[in-house]
Amino acid sequence: MADDTYYMKQALMEAQKAAEEGEVPVGAVVVCRDRIIARAHNLTETLTDVTAHAEMQAITAAANALGGKYLNDCTLYVTVEPCVMCAGAIAWAQTRRLVFGAGDEKRGYQKYAPNALHPKTEVVKGVLVDECTRLMKDFFRSKR
Amino acid sequence: MADDTYYMKQALMEAQKAAEEGEVPVGAVVVCRDRIIARAHNLTETLTDVTAHAEMQAITAAANALGGKYLNDCTLYVTVEPCVMCAGAIAWAQTRRLVFGAGDEKRGYQKYAPNALHPKTEVVKGVLVDECTRLMKDFFRSKR
Repeated sequence: MADDTYYMKQALMEAQKAAEEGEVPVGAVVVCRDRIIARAHNLTETLTDVTAHAEMQAITAAANALGGKYLNDCTLYVTVEPCVMCAGAIAWAQTRRLVFGAGDEKRGYQKYAPNALHPKTEVVKGVLVDECTRLMKDFFRSKR
Repeated sequence: MADDTYYMKQALMEAQKAAEEGEVPVGAVVVCRDRIIARAHNLTETLTDVTAHAEMQAITAAANALGGKYLNDCTLYVTVEPCVMCAGAIAWAQTRRLVFGAGDEKRGYQKYAPNALHPKTEVVKGVLVDECTRLMKDFFRSKR
């Protein structure tokens, strides 16, 4: 059985793709019963769409794969703490578990909407936090 | 020059379409310099996608119409107070004005994320509140 570190590595591979496309490097995967059912990375610049965060696309793709709206048997892995928008979507989807890597003090949901998640959603923080943070820092440093 | 009531009526027409499709009746339009550049209604059931709220689709469509991510010259009209997810999207889009009809005590952003919006976004509440509320009440009554 694969563990949180394994799936976060998969999310990091998605984030790396985003970086290579000039996007803020955030990646996500959705796992249902030990199978990855959706992979996505941030595409806000490519799609000219502020809603195209990795998590939003992963939720849409996972629902599509499952044929149902709810992810109550799924874990969403994302390299960076979700923003308010994504936390709201994670709540609507009744996601069973949320696992994220780096925190986001500026835009993360914990600051602006600490109760935004569904009360039953289990949250795990800091998985591969160094790798997730480094990818973000390298990206923003290269943009300066 | 059309006013907020006129544009909210257009959003109500979208909400009515949602009701006819068996969707929770929420409608939205985006107006830029006195022109409607996007119309949308809730499609969560039809698309099997919790992210398919009227506002999310309206923001995506408006950005597409403008060829740019930001709505800082636009007003988003929506028949019901946005949820946390949609408020987050409205913030990312740097929407200049948000006008909504009915409040939503259970799911509205004001309760869970009162600071979710961009600080520069002007908010107007209660436009055609009776019509917007009635559409929601009638819908949920018919579902019982």
